[in-house]
Amino acid sequence: MENVREIRLLRELITHGLWDEVADTCARMYVQDIAEALSGVEDEALPKAFMILPEDQHAGVFAYIELPVQHRLLEMLDDEAGRKLMAGLSPDDRTALLQSVNKEEAEQLLRLLSADDMRVALELLGYPAHSVGRLMTTRFVTLRPDWSLSEALAHVRRQGQGEETINTLYVTDARGHLAGTVSLKRLVMLAPEETVGQVVSGPLVTVQAAEDRTEAVRLIQHYDITALPVVDSRGILLGVVTVDDVMDVAEAENTEDFHKIGGVGAVALSLRDARPSLLYRKRVGWLVLLVFMNIFGGAGIAYFEETIEAVIALVFFLPLIVDSGGNAGSQSATLMVRALATGDVQSKDWLKLWGKELGVALALGLTMGAAVWGLGLWRGGSEVALVVSLAMVLVVMMGSMIGMLLPFLLTRMKFDPATASAPLITSIADIAGILIYFSIATAILTIPTT
Amino acid sequence: MENVREIRLLRELITHGLWDEVADTCARMYVQDIAEALSGVEDEALPKAFMILPEDQHAGVFAYIELPVQHRLLEMLDDEAGRKLMAGLSPDDRTALLQSVNKEEAEQLLRLLSADDMRVALELLGYPAHSVGRLMTTRFVTLRPDWSLSEALAHVRRQGQGEETINTLYVTDARGHLAGTVSLKRLVMLAPEETVGQVVSGPLVTVQAAEDRTEAVRLIQHYDITALPVVDSRGILLGVVTVDDVMDVAEAENTEDFHKIGGVGAVALSLRDARPSLLYRKRVGWLVLLVFMNIFGGAGIAYFEETIEAVIALVFFLPLIVDSGGNAGSQSATLMVRALATGDVQSKDWLKLWGKELGVALALGLTMGAAVWGLGLWRGGSEVALVVSLAMVLVVMMGSMIGMLLPFLLTRMKFDPATASAPLITSIADIAGILIYFSIATAILTIPTT
Repeated sequence: MENVREIRLLRELITHGLWDEVADTCARMYVQDIAEALSGVEDEALPKAFMILPEDQHAGVFAYIELPVQHRLLEMLDDEAGRKLMAGLSPDDRTALLQSVNKEEAEQLLRLLSADDMRVALELLGYPAHSVGRLMTTRFVTLRPDWSLSEALAHVRRQGQGEETINTLYVTDARGHLAGTVSLKRLVMLAPEETVGQVVSGPLVTVQAAEDRTEAVRLIQHYDITALPVVDSRGILLGVVTVDDVMDVAEAENTEDFHKIGGVGAVALSLRDARPSLLYRKRVGWLVLLVFMNIFGGAGIAYFEETIEAVIALVFFLPLIVDSGGNAGSQSATLMVRALATGDVQSKDWLKLWGKELGVALALGLTMGAAVWGLGLWRGGSEVALVVSLAMVLVVMMGSMIGMLLPFLLTRMKFDPATASAPLITSIADIAGILIYFSIATAILTIPTT
Repeated sequence: MENVREIRLLRELITHGLWDEVADTCARMYVQDIAEALSGVEDEALPKAFMILPEDQHAGVFAYIELPVQHRLLEMLDDEAGRKLMAGLSPDDRTALLQSVNKEEAEQLLRLLSADDMRVALELLGYPAHSVGRLMTTRFVTLRPDWSLSEALAHVRRQGQGEETINTLYVTDARGHLAGTVSLKRLVMLAPEETVGQVVSGPLVTVQAAEDRTEAVRLIQHYDITALPVVDSRGILLGVVTVDDVMDVAEAENTEDFHKIGGVGAVALSLRDARPSLLYRKRVGWLVLLVFMNIFGGAGIAYFEETIEAVIALVFFLPLIVDSGGNAGSQSATLMVRALATGDVQSKDWLKLWGKELGVALALGLTMGAAVWGLGLWRGGSEVALVVSLAMVLVVMMGSMIGMLLPFLLTRMKFDPATASAPLITSIADIAGILIYFSIATAILTIPTT
């Protein structure tokens, strides 16, 4: 965790305008850490702090600065400096920047690019949001099958200079169809007179550019690869997605799922940087919706007003029983949503899981029912104890069933299963719990007629 | 998603004992997919299905089979076959297998190793559970600073044959101190007469073997690297952690956090494979604990029994108000727990975030209070409307504060912040909500004396 201290020091130095020490400190820092320090600096100091960096760190640091800060920095620098920075970004980083700003701003930024880079940038932006195409870089080295390995190595020495990675080389025919890969390792290890075609590896894991980016995450994780070739529908190589981008996507998707199940809006926001107004908007929708759902719970209570007035002791157990249903439901929903997200279970598995869940829920319900039996006896006598225990068993089972089935139902209806948030499950389980509890009470207890 | 079909087909073929077709199908499948298919096969068919694979796929498939299945397979095969498979595993995969079984089973497995491999395996198992040492491989290629690049390349050709990855080569002095790295790319690109010392890259990101494995995840993500060198306290190179292992750790840690915040036990279990009894044990603890917490909620209600009996309409609003506090609290806790887990915020940021949260919570509370005002007026008149609105503002703010502060408090007390699960927050907020609501009601409403 040592870099945390360095980052804070650099920020302090910049804030106090100690520019000589800023330059010294940066010279022995990693570009990723400098970028993190700059992302937390006030706007006035930002361009000065950036331009004081050694020339050879500019492109590296810029690539790692947070997107909104990248954009602000470009706005404050002159066009000459902006052109250099935009040219230094890899195509996938350029896509990330361009898709993070609005249309006019994107056009401003595109003007800083060379004709070639602009064409590539527009092509990549043409793929749907959240698609693999938006993640890929178009910089890779290709080999032809009829080359000897020594020819191939000479080609790599000429072409590979500026490329992000040349650890994997792609073998294509004259029309660009991807035939397989040769790792730099094999190129170096094997006899130089063999041809590329003789040593090519395949069949190859590929992904189509229009697919959802989570598919790239899945493939890279499942096949333990560091670079995934992207092809079009004819099998022509378009680009490469690398494992570092995929890790960022996986983290963002996890955060989104996490927020969703907690009943916060679906945006993978940074809590540190998010403005209060954004946080308010992301939260208020669910809260208000759930209030209106809870009116049904209130209506349920009102419907049983007579029972309640007659045996006021019943209200004592209300939070206990109703919450238990919500808690059991939250547990089930959490397990299902996560298992669906990681691919541990598929939506077709629901029946098998439902059987298992039913058994688990029954066991949980019986345990909980037994736990509150004594409490019921003490507060309200044997009749109340029976009502409370019976209600507990049913409420826990009902909550578990709702929590388990809702994520599958949402998946079937093409919604994100994580929409089955803990607060939503809790509210649904509460309403059902109130009805179950007071129905049992009304049926079993001898209510004195008013 | 094509591999899903292939995997299912292979499983069917194995189940029906169509061994010729199994061999044919496997020949054109990836080892990762074959491994996944085998992980779902009944025990009787497992050894036969494995041994029918082409010899050159054995090591690859075995490395990707799930750990419990790896172990079962080794138990069913003869020692000769077991020895081959154990020898084919990389040191980090061997650690994963050995730490997944109990002590006697581990000793059985260790006996299948050569003396050298056994020594390495015992050394790696000597690191604490969940440490970086348990993740690292000890297979890497080192270079000396005074070698020329052509000498270095010749060394790589000799030594690199069996190693997992040689894309990064490690430069060490005679005593094993890590001085920096040279990428295979640079080795190939630069003039062969330069020395390793002239082209070495540094300063270097390293991690200590005894550190928690999440630190390796953080470093690899932050610095966008594919291999992280592991050193001891003197800076001697011990091993390398690769990005594919780190992705698996990140997924397991995310699942654990996800389960924790949903109030399920902390184990990163596979829902598909988990037995009902395990699921029961992971869930029952929290549920029972929360029931007993909710007794305080019940006691709160009992304490205000007179108020409730006098104005029974108040019970109508109970689920509405109390749930809103829990929901707001779940949202806050989710945001905080995730931000702490990803490093987006640190525990020292709590005061700044508390200020922000206070503002957001006030705005949310006022919105919610306004939303229920009309409802209160309609059900119980202007006094009840006042009680309900005021209680709503305070309950939402209180819930948000608890949800926000508890994860930080837990972090300070060296607990995992994800222990502040949605069900826990909901229960705490419920109790506080009951007290706030009925206190306000008792203070404001004119209660007819009984």
